[in-house]
Amino acid sequence: MQILDGKSCAGQIRAEIAAQVRQLLAEGLRAPHLVAVLVGDDGASETYVANKVRDCDEVGFNSTVTRLGADASEAKLLALIAELNADDAVDGFIVQLPLPGHVDEHQITLAIDPAKDVDGFGPSNVGLMCLGKPAFLPATPNGVMELLARHDIETEGRHCVVLGRSNIVGTPMSILLSRNSRPGNCTVTIAHSRTRGLAKLCASADVLITAIGKPHFVTADMVKEGAVVVDVGTTRLADSSRPSGFRLVGDVDFAQVAPKCSWISPVPGGVGPMTRASLLQNTLKAYRNRTRQDDV
Amino acid sequence: MQILDGKSCAGQIRAEIAAQVRQLLAEGLRAPHLVAVLVGDDGASETYVANKVRDCDEVGFNSTVTRLGADASEAKLLALIAELNADDAVDGFIVQLPLPGHVDEHQITLAIDPAKDVDGFGPSNVGLMCLGKPAFLPATPNGVMELLARHDIETEGRHCVVLGRSNIVGTPMSILLSRNSRPGNCTVTIAHSRTRGLAKLCASADVLITAIGKPHFVTADMVKEGAVVVDVGTTRLADSSRPSGFRLVGDVDFAQVAPKCSWISPVPGGVGPMTRASLLQNTLKAYRNRTRQDDV
Repeated sequence: MQILDGKSCAGQIRAEIAAQVRQLLAEGLRAPHLVAVLVGDDGASETYVANKVRDCDEVGFNSTVTRLGADASEAKLLALIAELNADDAVDGFIVQLPLPGHVDEHQITLAIDPAKDVDGFGPSNVGLMCLGKPAFLPATPNGVMELLARHDIETEGRHCVVLGRSNIVGTPMSILLSRNSRPGNCTVTIAHSRTRGLAKLCASADVLITAIGKPHFVTADMVKEGAVVVDVGTTRLADSSRPSGFRLVGDVDFAQVAPKCSWISPVPGGVGPMTRASLLQNTLKAYRNRTRQDDV
Repeated sequence: MQILDGKSCAGQIRAEIAAQVRQLLAEGLRAPHLVAVLVGDDGASETYVANKVRDCDEVGFNSTVTRLGADASEAKLLALIAELNADDAVDGFIVQLPLPGHVDEHQITLAIDPAKDVDGFGPSNVGLMCLGKPAFLPATPNGVMELLARHDIETEGRHCVVLGRSNIVGTPMSILLSRNSRPGNCTVTIAHSRTRGLAKLCASADVLITAIGKPHFVTADMVKEGAVVVDVGTTRLADSSRPSGFRLVGDVDFAQVAPKCSWISPVPGGVGPMTRASLLQNTLKAYRNRTRQDDV
């Protein structure tokens, strides 16, 4: 059994990006600039945004966090988005989800200029991805693809089961892995809460990707000997022994499952860091598109 | 074995639309207007467009066919699209594919105003579909969904194999059938040229949807007893005994396969008429969106 080491891969990606930024600065160009919009004071969102800022610092991007109160109106948020769309000094921006209940998330994603939509959540980027055209890919599925590619995992012709059909993970994951690309060319089954015979289906997978957010849902009997398992699920479980007060737990019961796998990604240190690295990749891509440099 | 009767369903849909158009006219409103752009003189494209015009006539839509020569430049086609986008008297338009080799089809689909993209081929509509939001659905997958719905086929929890991963049929079909809707909630496997053990996989399907364009590829051994089979493939085979000089043949060897099925769609008279009816549905929807009427 070998580990799909997201922590190390993400470190590599950040080092590659940092080298490119140094090159840009050496040429007298400005650094890429990412803006994160944070509405309200959700604890997990605060952490996510703080991590994104730290990543930007590490690779030499400029970053800005723009905060709105939890009671900010949808109109106010839309006005802020219009400003960011128009601001030439902003290459890409994200609106950290979830948003307070009175704001319609779909209207927000619709309002973001597709050229700055570095989360890849808006319909234009989702559609381009679906059509196999250049697009900002959603961070988690793109991170999984990078994780497979950088460990040179052969996927062609293999049966991949994607557990979960969300807009931001399961569905795009199934599209990316089924297309004629590398990694890709899998026979993909998308499974979900209405799937019958789920354990047996999972046990038939050469590649199993779990994205349901149910701690330790996937047990050893659900995994084929020699399978590649990618655990996208991360749930925060209260843990008073940790300084943070919680620990991250994946969808996969790692201790049970790992011995059966050829490759498995851990939680933490698997897909999470790759998701963060994807946002940096998209931001650099947005910068290069906007400054009319060749894509890298 | 029962027939998924696309010809009859499509007739029903046209009758429903015709009744709505009569109602619009009775209220003193104008009829919906579809424009078809035909570039060059491909025989099959001529037939498809002629059929679309006939369908419009039957339901009371206005229709216009705008022709460009096979040597028309991409710039000329883009200028025509800009005119159609701006023309208030046009509710929706399609550019009949395939286009001559010197025209980039992706640039064409990008240029069409998403509000008039009644083929649903542009990234904006594809993305909205993928996100489960209101969109113009691509005609063939939408036609299959209607065909299943109008025959009251239960799909929830059933294993559906989609054979083919094209942008306009296989991939959107897999998305629509996997989502939480009715029909839908299938466990969907998307299979393609790189799939291993294809016959066995197909034989495990409760619902089999074939969209590969290989005449009689699906034989009886590839179909489970009691399966629902939807044959999207249509290939024109030369047939001198027909006035047209050809006959349409599906992906499924109907004579062999039909006796094993609970339901099966024939070719012709299955998905083809449903695809045509979908374009009418999308055009009426575009009209209602544009004229700010409630969607029906």
